[in-house]
Amino acid sequence: MSDRVTRKGKSQPQKEEPKQAKKQKVQKETYDVVQLQDIAHQLRIHSIEMTIASNSGHPTSCASMAEILAALFFTKAGMHFNPKDPGNFGNDRFVLSKGHAAPILYAAWSMVGYIDSKELLNLRKIDSLLEGHPVPKLPFVDVATGSLGQGLSVAGGMAYSSKFLDKINNRYWVLMGDGEIAEGSVWEAAHLASHYKLDNITAIVDVNRLGQSEETSIGHDVNVYKKRWEAFGWKTLVIDGHNLNQLTDAFEQCRNVKNQPQVIIAKTFKGKYLEMENKEDWHGKPVPQAQVEFVKKQMKQQGGFTLTPEVPTQIEKPQQSHFTLDVNYAVDAKQSTREAYGKALVGLSKTDANQQIVAVDGDTKNSTFSIKYKEVVPTNFVECFIAEQNMVGWAQGFSCRGKVAFASTFAAFFARGFDQIRMGGISESQVKYVGSHAGVSIGEDGPSQMGLEDIAMFRTIPNCVVLYPSDGVSAERAIELVANHKSPCYVRMSRPSLPILYSNNEVFEIGKSKILKQNDDDKILLIGGGVTTQEIFKAAKQLSEQDQIHVTVLDLFSVKPIDHDGILNAANKTTLKTILVVEDHYMEGGLFEAVSSCLSLNNEVKIHSIHVDKVAKSGTPAQMLQMYHLDAAGIIARVKSIIQ
Amino acid sequence: MSDRVTRKGKSQPQKEEPKQAKKQKVQKETYDVVQLQDIAHQLRIHSIEMTIASNSGHPTSCASMAEILAALFFTKAGMHFNPKDPGNFGNDRFVLSKGHAAPILYAAWSMVGYIDSKELLNLRKIDSLLEGHPVPKLPFVDVATGSLGQGLSVAGGMAYSSKFLDKINNRYWVLMGDGEIAEGSVWEAAHLASHYKLDNITAIVDVNRLGQSEETSIGHDVNVYKKRWEAFGWKTLVIDGHNLNQLTDAFEQCRNVKNQPQVIIAKTFKGKYLEMENKEDWHGKPVPQAQVEFVKKQMKQQGGFTLTPEVPTQIEKPQQSHFTLDVNYAVDAKQSTREAYGKALVGLSKTDANQQIVAVDGDTKNSTFSIKYKEVVPTNFVECFIAEQNMVGWAQGFSCRGKVAFASTFAAFFARGFDQIRMGGISESQVKYVGSHAGVSIGEDGPSQMGLEDIAMFRTIPNCVVLYPSDGVSAERAIELVANHKSPCYVRMSRPSLPILYSNNEVFEIGKSKILKQNDDDKILLIGGGVTTQEIFKAAKQLSEQDQIHVTVLDLFSVKPIDHDGILNAANKTTLKTILVVEDHYMEGGLFEAVSSCLSLNNEVKIHSIHVDKVAKSGTPAQMLQMYHLDAAGIIARVKSIIQ
Repeated sequence: MSDRVTRKGKSQPQKEEPKQAKKQKVQKETYDVVQLQDIAHQLRIHSIEMTIASNSGHPTSCASMAEILAALFFTKAGMHFNPKDPGNFGNDRFVLSKGHAAPILYAAWSMVGYIDSKELLNLRKIDSLLEGHPVPKLPFVDVATGSLGQGLSVAGGMAYSSKFLDKINNRYWVLMGDGEIAEGSVWEAAHLASHYKLDNITAIVDVNRLGQSEETSIGHDVNVYKKRWEAFGWKTLVIDGHNLNQLTDAFEQCRNVKNQPQVIIAKTFKGKYLEMENKEDWHGKPVPQAQVEFVKKQMKQQGGFTLTPEVPTQIEKPQQSHFTLDVNYAVDAKQSTREAYGKALVGLSKTDANQQIVAVDGDTKNSTFSIKYKEVVPTNFVECFIAEQNMVGWAQGFSCRGKVAFASTFAAFFARGFDQIRMGGISESQVKYVGSHAGVSIGEDGPSQMGLEDIAMFRTIPNCVVLYPSDGVSAERAIELVANHKSPCYVRMSRPSLPILYSNNEVFEIGKSKILKQNDDDKILLIGGGVTTQEIFKAAKQLSEQDQIHVTVLDLFSVKPIDHDGILNAANKTTLKTILVVEDHYMEGGLFEAVSSCLSLNNEVKIHSIHVDKVAKSGTPAQMLQMYHLDAAGIIARVKSIIQ
Repeated sequence: MSDRVTRKGKSQPQKEEPKQAKKQKVQKETYDVVQLQDIAHQLRIHSIEMTIASNSGHPTSCASMAEILAALFFTKAGMHFNPKDPGNFGNDRFVLSKGHAAPILYAAWSMVGYIDSKELLNLRKIDSLLEGHPVPKLPFVDVATGSLGQGLSVAGGMAYSSKFLDKINNRYWVLMGDGEIAEGSVWEAAHLASHYKLDNITAIVDVNRLGQSEETSIGHDVNVYKKRWEAFGWKTLVIDGHNLNQLTDAFEQCRNVKNQPQVIIAKTFKGKYLEMENKEDWHGKPVPQAQVEFVKKQMKQQGGFTLTPEVPTQIEKPQQSHFTLDVNYAVDAKQSTREAYGKALVGLSKTDANQQIVAVDGDTKNSTFSIKYKEVVPTNFVECFIAEQNMVGWAQGFSCRGKVAFASTFAAFFARGFDQIRMGGISESQVKYVGSHAGVSIGEDGPSQMGLEDIAMFRTIPNCVVLYPSDGVSAERAIELVANHKSPCYVRMSRPSLPILYSNNEVFEIGKSKILKQNDDDKILLIGGGVTTQEIFKAAKQLSEQDQIHVTVLDLFSVKPIDHDGILNAANKTTLKTILVVEDHYMEGGLFEAVSSCLSLNNEVKIHSIHVDKVAKSGTPAQMLQMYHLDAAGIIARVKSIIQ
C-alpha cells in the first residue's frame, strides 16, 4: 500500500479518466494512508480494551470496520462535520446500523473529540452513556440501533428531509453488517431511497462473512450483494474494505453521484489484524489482552494524528411550532374519527409556519384520510407504499430532523413495524402514530384488517401517549394534542361514521378522561373508548329512559397515561361501586387491563369487562359489535345482569 | 389467440426446442384456450356478483388474475390435486398471498367442486366461512392472508417440508399482488427459498400496476421485478398474465426447473375485461351489475366445462406423536432456562418416532441453545438467518404440514414478526415460539436486546398459551407441555444461570401456578415469573429468617391461561389479603396486569407491582435488577413498606 493516495488511486495510473469524472470537480485530495492505517489500528485497540474492561461486547465485529471508520471520520472524502459541534444541523450524520459494533463508534468519536478517551473504558457500565448498543442520549447518535436492519430506514427519512424539505446538502452514511442484509426492512429501505432518488445517502456493507452462529447465507460472495443492490436501484461499488485507498476513492465517487443512493460493498474480515481474523466462534466475545500488543506491533508511527475534516456551514436545528386548531362540527354531524385525522392535519397546517408537519402513509392514505393533508401540503406528504417497517423508520428519521412526523396506516398493520416502534421508544423518538380501522367495527373485511392488539402494543412503549377519540371533535383535539407533545404518541381511529358527542370548544387533555353522563343515583360506571363510547352512551340513555336504571358514562379518551383519579372518583360515586369496561380490542393489554391495573390497590371497586374474546370474522359492523356484545343491546343486558 | 395451444406455444413454432427441454418429458399437453378463457370470464362474473351481494370487496383485483387462476386450476400445467379431496396431503397447494382477492379464490374452488356455487353469494356474511380474506377454516386454505407479503414465507416452510422432510413431490403455488412486493418480508422469503434451492415453489406476481391509493412504485416496469427476483436467485419468467398460452407454457417451464424456485412476473390489468380496466379509484369497490353482462358478452361458449386435473397419489397427513421427557437435574445444579430449551428439544426427540419436531432460528441458535437440537437432529433444524418475519412464516408453514414447529430467537426480536404472529393467531397456527434473553436481567447488552414487551404481545394472540419457567426443570416441562398442546404457544426464557427450584418429577400444567412457599401466618402473597420467581424466593427466605415476616411465594408459570383460583386462594389466605407482583417486563400487558384483571371482581385483594418502569440501559444483570427494584433487596424493602 502506498503512503499517500490520491482520489483516483494508484492502481489505475495509466487509465484515462472517464468522461463523467472530468466534468466533475478536479480537486485531488491526498490522504496520509500510513496515518489512517494507524488510526484504524488505534480504533481496534480501543475496541479491544473497552470490551475487556466491560467483559462483554463485540471486538471482532469492530475490527472488520476499523479502516472504514478511519477513512470515513478522518478524511475529507468521508464525513463533513464540525469536530467542535456535534449539534450542527449541517453536519453529515453517521448511522451505525450494526449497533453491536458500538465500541468502535465510541472510539472514533472519542478520537474526534466528542468523548473523553478515559470514558471509553466505562463501556456498558451502569452510570455511563456508552451503552452496549448506541442510544441517542449521545449527541452523535440519532436513533437507537441494536435490532438489526433498521438504520437505513431512519437514514432514508433524514435524507429525504435534508434534500427535499430543509434543502441542505449534508449527507447520511449508514454502516450495515452483512448479516442484517437478510432483514426485509433493509430492502424496504433500499427500495424507497432509490424511488425518491436520495443521492445524499451512502450505505456501506461490512461484508465480514461471519454471523453470530455461523457463516452468513451469502458469505464472501460480494457479487450477490452487488446484483441485489443494483436491482434495487443503487449505485453499487465493490471494494476491499481494508484498503484505505479504495475506501477514500469510493467515498469520493459516492459524493459525486446524482439522483441515486449509493452502496459500498466492502469485503472485510471479522477480527481483521487480530489473531482470530476470519475465525468462527469469536462473535460477541472479548479477546485476550495480548491482542492489544498484537495490533500495536502492526502500527507504523504509534504517534498522534491530525484531524482536518471538511467543516460544513453552521445551521441551527429548527424549533418546533406550537400548533392550534379550529374545530367546527354541526351538532348533528356524523363523521368517522379516521376522517377527522385528515381534517385535523389540514387544520394544523394553518399554524405550521415552517411546514414542520410531515405525514407518511403506506398506500392506505385514502382509508386513513392522510390524503387530505397531501392535497393541501403535497411537499410534506411522503407515500411509503406497502412497507410499514420502513415507513415507521422514515417517520423516525423525520423526527430526528426536527419534524413533527405523523405515520398512518390501518391499526393492525402497525404490528408489522412493532420492532421499529419498540426501538423508537428506546430512542425516545417523537413520532405520532395514527392507526385507522381499529377493532371489529370495521366489519366485512375480517380479522386480518382489524387492529385488536394495537392498544396493548403501543401501551408497552415507555412514555408513549395513547389516545382513543370517540367522535370528530375529540379526534381532531387528539391530533392537536399529540402534535404539540414531545413523546411517542399513538391515536386510535375507527372506521364507522359516528355522531358528534362534544362541543367544538371542549377541552381535552392528555391523562384526562371525560364524563359524558353522570347523576347522583347512578348504579354503575360504564367506560368505553371510540365506538364503544358511542355504544355505552346509547345504552345509558336507553337504560335510563326505559328501565330507570341510571349509569355514569365515562369516555376514557386517554388510555395512557390513564386518568386514575377521574376513574376512581366516578366509580366511587356509583351506588354499586362497580365498573363495566367495554372495548373493541382484545382484553389483554387493552382498556380493561389498563383500568384494572390502575385501580388494583382499591378495595371497593369491582371491574367487569366486555371485549373481543376470540378470533373475529367477517360480518357487517353492526353484526360484529353484536357478536361480541359490544353494542348498546349487549351492554344493556350486561348491566342488568351485573345489577341483579 | 389460437383456440388450442401446445405446451410450447404457437408463437415459436420454427424454433428448435432447447436441448434441456428435449431431455425432459416430451408430453405435449394441449389445452382448450377458448374454454379456459370462458372459465376466466366465469371467475370474473362470480367475483362481480359476490362483491355486489356483499356490497364490499375487491372485484377489480380479482379481474386481473382470472386467467392466472383459470390456467392454474384447470390445466395439468398448473396445480395437481384431487378435485374430490382437498385433504389429500399429496395435493399441490395454492396460497393466495393477496388475500383481498378472496372472491375469485372461492369462485375457483367452487368451480372445482369444493364449494357449493350457491354459497358464493354469502361472501362476507357473518354465518359463512367465505370471509373477506381467506382463513384456514376452509380446507383449501393453509393460512390466513390479508396482511400483505406473508404468503411466500409460509409456502417456503411448506415447500421445505415436502422436499426435505416428507420427501413428497407436490408443489406450492403462491399468487402475490404487485403492491405487496414492497414488503420486506417478501425479500426475506425470496432469499431463503433460493438459499435452500426450493424448486417446488412457484410464485406468480400479478402486476396489475394499481395499488390501493395510487399506482405502485414500480408500475408496469416488469423488468425491475425481473432484475430483483433474478438477483435473489429465482428463475424468472415475464409474461402477459392474460395470455393463457403464455401462462400454461410458463407453468410447464416452472415444473421442469431444478434446484431453484421460480417466479412468473405476470403483466396484467386491474379490472381487465371490465369497463373500469386499468382505471384508478376502483380498488376495493363493487362494480355495477351491468359489468356482468359486459363480461358475458365476451364469452365464446357460455357453456359448462370439464376439469381433468392431474390427480396425485393419495397421501395421509401424518398424525402427531405424544412426546414425553426425562428431566434430570442435580439438586444444586444451576442452569439458564434458555439452555434448558435446547436440552428439552433433544430430550423430546427421543420420543419423536416420525421426526415431526422442526426447529427454526434466526442466527441466534448459540444463544437460544436451539443449536443443541441441530447437533442431534440436523435434518430437522432450519437456519433462517437474520430475518424474523420470514422465520415465523416458515414455522407456520411447517405447522401446516403437520410438523411440531418451534421458532426461537431473542424475545425482543419476536416483535419483528408480530404481524406474522398475529396472522398466525387468526390461522390458529400451532407454532411454539421460544424467546430467550427476556428482560433487563440480560444485563450489559442494553435495551435493544431486552424483551420487555413480549408477554404483552403474545398474550394478545387468541388461544395463545404463555408459559414463563423459572428454572431448568420448569423450563423443560414447559417445552414438553407446549410440544403436546394444539395451539400457538410462547415460552419465555431468561439468560442468567439460575438455581434449580423444582424436583425432576414435579408436574406442571398449562393454566396452573406453583406455590413455592406458604405458611398459615403469611402476611402477603408474592408472585413472580422466571428470574423474579428466584428473587421473590430469596426475598421470602430472608424476610422469614431475618425479620420474622412470612410471605407466600407463587411462581406464576402459566401466564395465559392464568391460574385464577390458585392466585385467589393464595391471596385470600394471607393475613393482609395483598399481592405483590414482581416482573422483569414492562407493567403494560405483563404479569401484573394479567393478575389485576383476573382478580378485578374481587373486592378484598390489593395488588401491588414492581416492574420495569422506564427505558432500560446497560449494566450488569445484578445492577439492572437492582435498578428496577426487581432483586431480593428491592422486594424486601417493598414488602416492608406495604406491611407498614
